[in-house]
Amino acid sequence: MRAAIITIGDEILIGQILDTNSGYIAKALDKIGVQTVEMVSISDDKTHILNTFSKFQDQVDLVIVTGGLGPTKDDVTKKTFCDYFDDELVSDPKVLAHVEDLFEKFTGKRQPLLQTNIDQALVPSKATVLFNHFGTAPGLWMQKDNTVFMSLPGVPYEMKGLIDQEIIPKIAREYKRPYIVHKTILTYGMGESLLADKIAGWENNLPEFIKLAYLPSPGRVRLRLSARGMDKALIEKTIEQKVHDLTAIIGDIIVGFDDSETIEVMLGKQLTQKGKTIATAESCTGGKIAQVLTSVPGSSKYYKGSIVAYHKQIKTEMLGVRPETIAQHSVVSAQVAIEMAQNVKKILNTDYGIGVTGNAGPTTDDTPEEIGVVYIALATPHETVVERFNFGQPREKVIDRAVSKSFEMLQKEVLKLKD
Amino acid sequence: MRAAIITIGDEILIGQILDTNSGYIAKALDKIGVQTVEMVSISDDKTHILNTFSKFQDQVDLVIVTGGLGPTKDDVTKKTFCDYFDDELVSDPKVLAHVEDLFEKFTGKRQPLLQTNIDQALVPSKATVLFNHFGTAPGLWMQKDNTVFMSLPGVPYEMKGLIDQEIIPKIAREYKRPYIVHKTILTYGMGESLLADKIAGWENNLPEFIKLAYLPSPGRVRLRLSARGMDKALIEKTIEQKVHDLTAIIGDIIVGFDDSETIEVMLGKQLTQKGKTIATAESCTGGKIAQVLTSVPGSSKYYKGSIVAYHKQIKTEMLGVRPETIAQHSVVSAQVAIEMAQNVKKILNTDYGIGVTGNAGPTTDDTPEEIGVVYIALATPHETVVERFNFGQPREKVIDRAVSKSFEMLQKEVLKLKD
Repeated sequence: MRAAIITIGDEILIGQILDTNSGYIAKALDKIGVQTVEMVSISDDKTHILNTFSKFQDQVDLVIVTGGLGPTKDDVTKKTFCDYFDDELVSDPKVLAHVEDLFEKFTGKRQPLLQTNIDQALVPSKATVLFNHFGTAPGLWMQKDNTVFMSLPGVPYEMKGLIDQEIIPKIAREYKRPYIVHKTILTYGMGESLLADKIAGWENNLPEFIKLAYLPSPGRVRLRLSARGMDKALIEKTIEQKVHDLTAIIGDIIVGFDDSETIEVMLGKQLTQKGKTIATAESCTGGKIAQVLTSVPGSSKYYKGSIVAYHKQIKTEMLGVRPETIAQHSVVSAQVAIEMAQNVKKILNTDYGIGVTGNAGPTTDDTPEEIGVVYIALATPHETVVERFNFGQPREKVIDRAVSKSFEMLQKEVLKLKD
Repeated sequence: MRAAIITIGDEILIGQILDTNSGYIAKALDKIGVQTVEMVSISDDKTHILNTFSKFQDQVDLVIVTGGLGPTKDDVTKKTFCDYFDDELVSDPKVLAHVEDLFEKFTGKRQPLLQTNIDQALVPSKATVLFNHFGTAPGLWMQKDNTVFMSLPGVPYEMKGLIDQEIIPKIAREYKRPYIVHKTILTYGMGESLLADKIAGWENNLPEFIKLAYLPSPGRVRLRLSARGMDKALIEKTIEQKVHDLTAIIGDIIVGFDDSETIEVMLGKQLTQKGKTIATAESCTGGKIAQVLTSVPGSSKYYKGSIVAYHKQIKTEMLGVRPETIAQHSVVSAQVAIEMAQNVKKILNTDYGIGVTGNAGPTTDDTPEEIGVVYIALATPHETVVERFNFGQPREKVIDRAVSKSFEMLQKEVLKLKD
């Protein structure tokens, strides 16, 4: 079962917008045993789209197209589908009613639609229409010989809704697929070359149906084993055995196996399970810790809130950081981070408090510390720990690394808790 | 001058890693007048890579390949280049010396290299070698007929170094290219359909060499004009005239022209210029308003901070929302939003205060309001305005739209100020 993903839009080809849709779709397909063999981004150009369709016809089973479905003139996907399938556009009454509902809900009153909105309900007459709960442009499903072509809107949350609620269940129902297992082994502290050298013998003995990939990032290498086949039991048993063998060789640098869960989701589960709560006091991260924590549905169970003390005065007035502490150590200091963590924990009455202060850059605050330096303090029921980091530049990287470091510090503490 | 970008790596095709390289390269090419006609991601499979090379041969002038150059076995790009160019690998002494230097620097001592690292210095004998300052794998430049094929490492900062320091200067030196102008017009507060309807006449009169694209995001639409041609003066003059004509039609919703300027950057400039300050009180947006405002360097001049009152109790205890207000109107109500905005403005002593309360979903709070409903209040020096929205679902969309709506409300007020 093979798929190709096509993204349509000039804005991607000039680098103005990053294509995040293809990766989302590929991941969802992979989970149900469909192999993505190619991802392509092309412009809103009918000939180019038609040529790309022809190239994939007979080469893959599924072609998923995103983008080019909006109400305006630069969107050509629906017309191109009509050309390719020798079809014509007709108005779909169910989609039209949905478009009317969405506009009524948004504006608070029933009103005549613009022609461009009425046209959103136009679909190729031979298409199976997939309902888009989150927007006006419907999904389309059309088959030619053995290849199905699907069209989805390019807006990420609309695309995601259609993939999760319509496309994936439909493929899972209608097609027999091989079984795919990925196992990721997270290693820390050894370079890619040395690691490859160390496990060369093990790697050479992997069976044909298991592929190994090295995914290096600063400080760590993830090893990904991918197995594919119809015999589920054999695949699972072989992967398990191979991971066992690998652990005997490099067990000392393996830190984990699950690649799919973000740290904020894991933290959420652990905090919920253990009935603990958290509050944050943020300076240089400007609310990003709060934003990432609250991006998890159900986070109100363990996350009480944040004081984003962007201005020095707020640190003293709202957070109760002592002016003497700032005067003596400067606003970017271990002492200020500690008082922020302890005080926010006390004020919001939680089990844990995180306090972050630093120089995100590009300019510096009234402090002797250089740009990129961040202090993170974590107040627990028993003690307060604080760490100093220098994340360098740019600003964005300083903020992101401060957010993940604070989560790592919190997780270390949470893992110590008994159930 | 046309280019294609190929990304090699299974990790992209299973959605484990997002391809950010292609967008970076496309943007750099676009700036020097090279048009990217297609981006492709394929697996580490020699046959598939060779087929893709053949497809682009004669179709484009430049083919830029990233990925598949590391020291481990899953990397096949160099061998495939040898196949395609009927060439063989030879050791490059300059690259080998560089690899030795890098390891010495990293480990602090000169030591024998592993075979996998020695092999990093192998390059096709006919290739022009491009020096990689930030890593061991060099860039390659090879020509067949009229098409140049380039290979770059997949690690983003190594790829960026080669693009900025080697590839772009070399293309700019060796090729004659057309002139490209993009102009982006930022509009706020009008939907894509209505906007398209309003400017249809203007759009139909655009000359052949100017393309228009609509780039909608929650609450706003960017219009992008792209012109391409050899006559620089004509292109620039025509774009200028067309923007002037457009301003006559929709001047009231145009908020800026620089695409690098987001609404938070514009707000920052306006608030700084007018010497005004702002504070926020967030519930369902969970700190995202703070995070977006503070993503702007220099935001500490006008942004004092936020109280992220994720838990009901924080709203009353820290923000001073009256318990009777919550009891009478529920936590998701105009009255609560108003008190949040007014109180945070007072507590943090600012000119403006924003208060946001709503049901982001997927589950609902203790309120009769449905999921997706958000109240946003803006307290100004003279009055407090409040608006009710229903952003539907999913959660991500509710949060993003609430953030942009609050910025729109603030901008409307800020624009009223006299200089």
